[in-house]
Formats: sequence, structure tokens, C-alpha cells
Amino acid sequence: MPVATLASVKGVDIARVAETGATMLLANTYHLHLRPGEELVDQSGGVGHFMGWSGPTLTDSGGYQVFSLAQQVKVTDHGAMFRSHLDGSQVDLTPEKAVAIQESLGADVAMQLDHVIGLPAARNDVAEAMERSLAWGERCLAARQKSDQAMFGIVQGGLDSELRANSAKHLRSLPFEGFAVGGLSVGEGPEAMASTLQATVPHLPEDKPRYLMGVGKPEDIINAVAVGIDMFDCVLPTRCGRNALLYTFDGPLRLRNALYLKDKRPIESDCPCMACGHTRAYMRHLFLAGEMLGPILASIHNLTFYQRLMGRLREAIVAGQFQAVRADILARMN
Amino acid sequence: MPVATLASVKGVDIARVAETGATMLLANTYHLHLRPGEELVDQSGGVGHFMGWSGPTLTDSGGYQVFSLAQQVKVTDHGAMFRSHLDGSQVDLTPEKAVAIQESLGADVAMQLDHVIGLPAARNDVAEAMERSLAWGERCLAARQKSDQAMFGIVQGGLDSELRANSAKHLRSLPFEGFAVGGLSVGEGPEAMASTLQATVPHLPEDKPRYLMGVGKPEDIINAVAVGIDMFDCVLPTRCGRNALLYTFDGPLRLRNALYLKDKRPIESDCPCMACGHTRAYMRHLFLAGEMLGPILASIHNLTFYQRLMGRLREAIVAGQFQAVRADILARMN
Repeated sequence: MPVATLASVKGVDIARVAETGATMLLANTYHLHLRPGEELVDQSGGVGHFMGWSGPTLTDSGGYQVFSLAQQVKVTDHGAMFRSHLDGSQVDLTPEKAVAIQESLGADVAMQLDHVIGLPAARNDVAEAMERSLAWGERCLAARQKSDQAMFGIVQGGLDSELRANSAKHLRSLPFEGFAVGGLSVGEGPEAMASTLQATVPHLPEDKPRYLMGVGKPEDIINAVAVGIDMFDCVLPTRCGRNALLYTFDGPLRLRNALYLKDKRPIESDCPCMACGHTRAYMRHLFLAGEMLGPILASIHNLTFYQRLMGRLREAIVAGQFQAVRADILARMN
Repeated sequence: MPVATLASVKGVDIARVAETGATMLLANTYHLHLRPGEELVDQSGGVGHFMGWSGPTLTDSGGYQVFSLAQQVKVTDHGAMFRSHLDGSQVDLTPEKAVAIQESLGADVAMQLDHVIGLPAARNDVAEAMERSLAWGERCLAARQKSDQAMFGIVQGGLDSELRANSAKHLRSLPFEGFAVGGLSVGEGPEAMASTLQATVPHLPEDKPRYLMGVGKPEDIINAVAVGIDMFDCVLPTRCGRNALLYTFDGPLRLRNALYLKDKRPIESDCPCMACGHTRAYMRHLFLAGEMLGPILASIHNLTFYQRLMGRLREAIVAGQFQAVRADILARMN
């Protein structure tokens, strides 16, 4: 899922987003609650209609942004109290409020509120945040007013295999429509991510979506698919695009490099995106000249790359050749 | 002509530019000479091919940017010596060099180098700059090496009707493929612009294109068409778009205004552009949230508006109803 934080995939108009092959978008509850507020989005027919997207949508609960963006955060069993990163105003986010806001935002999938903590952390703190997330998950389910919005639970437990397994086992006993793995891709490294997923995913039901939140780099996605993850979201395609880092199946390309000064090839020769109708020399010129079109085209390319990557992985699974394709892709990328 | 200063219409991909109805683009010799340099553009097949534009293109000569952007400018009969606004490097721009650069840039239409001076100025200075521009025009024609590039002369003469008429009469005796009116839209106001055009355009041949450089606001364009101008270029559609000023046939709309907070109407109900697939409330939200998509969509709308305006004026001329349509449009806009 491309990330439409504030009901906009940064730099890319919604028809171009669809052209990348994307079928579902994520928007951020924390951001939309602060700007423009969920009432306006509700009055506009929900976040999809608000931004002109006809496909499915998902909103996160705000738990991650409370952890990463908010100021003066105080978390109790009641909920999270914090100050807005925009104007310092006091916000009180409880599981019940996270559900109410998300129902107003009207996405097809809402996420439970979870307690995300920074790592490394003492095991007791990790356990407490995990247990609190479970209790909040139950309260989120109890707070639902709408029958046309799915809700996913979120596994927490840091890098502790036992806590992760306990969290997953408890969550699967609850009537969520899908399950997410949260609290990863926070600097733990690929080995720790892999071992944590190994300890978690087998405990989640195979017949419901399994979603790894906020991940990630192409190789992280490939390895998470190998463990059984079905869904991802990440800002990397657009954020890296804005910074002139272009993903390709031959590895990333840093467009500011003088290597590309006169390079008449497209970013990726078999890519159907409109950025790849241009030469690397032109794309590099746009970045060096500070033209907005550089970030725009690079974002379109990276979003297209991610969709092509996911498409190849899906095809490989259907064809029963996932491990071979995985090895091929990883070898070529590196 | 939308302006593609650095071989990019700011914030709008080239296919979207074509969708606005634009048929010809302008690029800037001064800017492209500094970045990325005309050699790269030449090696890329010319400025149109470089930016992926299949329609006609025009490059200005750099005269206006020397006046408006360059530092430590010294103009003699030889040419203009100045320092780059980017890195202070010394640039020596003669008529011959302006032609050589533009031949490398490879647009369909090149402009002669002209001497633009600030107004108000002493009549002697205005006359000297006008005479120098005529001499430079002759040198530009003599310096041409390519037969597949048109060249336009540029009328100068400030706000002095006699100087303008003299400039136009001299220029039309030279083998230019078209004629431009330069040195206007520099703060002289609509009345002075109108009287200067009245003193100039009748002296230019009707069977060759007459081009008013760097103009302008919708009402300026409408009034210039009334005098006989055929071609325009201006950065206003994209520059105003980036600043949340949206043009409509009911007058401009300043999107940051709280008036539009919950406005479910599109910017302009009969506009076919993709921005007008969204509500004003959504467009306003994008600007207030600082999303790149706001400037992008607003630029697309404004470019579309300008093309629709020109289309209506062309249709009115063909139908023999120009004056009535002009009055209608101006009345509704104000």
C-alpha cells in the first residue's frame, strides 16, 4: 500500500497512483485527525472519496505516530495523552477514540490502537506494552459502531519471541478480520526482524490477512513474504523518490551521481512507468536544477517498482516457484 | 505557451501538460545554458526531445533573464557580460552566442538577443537599447547556421510610441519568421501596456506570428489579442498555482481562504482538468497541510484554464464575435 499520510500520496496525483498498479492505500489517523480533522473527511464521504481513490483504503490507529512524532507523550492503561507535533495542543487518544476517529475517516480497514515503544527496552516494559496493546485491542473491538469496516489487531512484543508468540495467540482468539505485526522496522536490523517474524507469523491464522506495518526495503518485504506476510505499507517509495534514490531490480540508483550525467538509458529499461520514458540524464538534471518534477517522476517510478516487485512475488507463489524467484531477485539486486 | 524554464513545466509531468491542451512550450536559454548546458540538451536531441515533448518549442534568447536575474551586468554593443545568479561565474552573451546556444538547444523557434532595460528610464537610454536590439537582431540573423529553426525579432522601445513604431518598422524589413514585443509586463500597468501595443502591433506584418513576451494575466492576454497578438508565454499559471491562486472564468480563487473549508464544489464546474475532479475543500486541505499535490493540481488547473481561455478567444475570432466574447469574459471575470 502506498502511503497517503494526509490523504495524498506525496507528489503523485491519484490517477498516476492507480497507474503504478497500486490497489489499496493507507492513510494516517494521527495526521488526518490534526489536519483537516475527521469531521471534514466524514462529510466528504470518507478518506477514499476525499482524495478521489475508488479502491480500498486502510487507516492506521495513530499508535505509531504517537511514538514517533508526538511530544510529551504519557501512556496509561486509559490511553495515550500527548501534544500535537504541529501546534502543541493536547490530544487524548484512547482505544475508543481511535475507533471513533477511524469510523469517521471511513476506510475499509481500521487498525486497533496499540502501544509502540522504542527498542531496546527492558523486557518488563516490552511485556507491559504488549499486554496493554491486547487490552486496547479488545476495547477497540467493543467500541465498534460500524459493520462495514474491518478491524485488524496488532501483535506487539518487541524482539522477544515468547512475548510475540503470546501476543499473536491471544489476538487470534479475538474476532479481528486481519492481523498486523507492529513495532518492527524501528532500527532492529534484518536478522532481528526475520527472527521476530519467524516467532510471530506461524501463530497467526492463514485464512486472514497478515500485515507487516511500515515495512519496508525491497529485501525486507521479500523476506517477510517468505515467512507468510500478505500486506505491507511503507513511505520509502515516495520518500526515497524525493531524495533521488531510485529502486530497480538491479539495485538502487542514486540519481545525483555524476555517473548519470549523459546516461541516455531510462532508469529501468523494462519499467512501464512514465518516468522511464525519460533518460537518466534528464531525470538527474531535474534533481540538480531543483525542479519539482524530479521528485514527482522518481516517486512514480519507485511506486511502480514496488508494485512490480509485489506482482512478481505473487506470480512466483502461484507458480510454486517462490524460493527460486526470491533468490534470483535478491541476487540481482545485490 | 506554458513555460518550461529548465526543460520542465514546474510540477507537471509532460503528459499532463499535453492534457491541458497546450500545443507549444517555451524554455529559457539563460537557464538551460547554466544548467545543464546546451551540449547535453543537443546530445539529447534538442530541448523538446530532452523533456519528452513532441510538439513545437520556442527558446527565448536570455535577454530578459540578463535584465531580471543576472548580477553585475554590463551591456555594450558587443553583448552582455554578467555573472550567473547561481555561482557568480562570468558569462559573455553576444548575439552570435545567443544564436549558437539556441541552435544547440534545438527549439523550433529561436529569439534574437535583445537589450531589455528597466522602466522608467531616460528616453536616450530607451532609444539606445532599442537601436542596439535592432543591431543585435541583424547580427543574430547573420549568425544563423541552421535552416530548420525559425527566428523571431523583438520590438523594444519602452513606453515610447515613436520608438516602438520605429523599432517595428525596421524589424519587419528583416527576414525574421515572426515578431515579438518585448520589454512589457515589467510593472507598467494595463493602460501603458495597451497604448504601447497600439503603437506597435499595427506596424508588424499580419501574415507572420506576433508574440507578446512574458504576458500575462488573463485580462492582459484578452486585451492584447484584441490588438492583434497571436502568441503568449507566461509563468503565471504555474507560479500562481504553487501559491494557491486558482484562475476561473468567474475570477481568481484564493484557495487558502477559510471560505472553502467545506466547499464541496470543484474549482470550476465545467473544467475538464483532473484537479476539478476534487472538491475545493480537498484542494484547500492539500495547501494547508503543505502537500506537494496542492501545487501540482493547482498548476494543472491553471494551465488548463489558460488553454481554455485561448480556445474561447480563437473560436470567437473565427465566429466573428470577438468583441462580444471579450466583453462577456471580462465582465464575468470581474
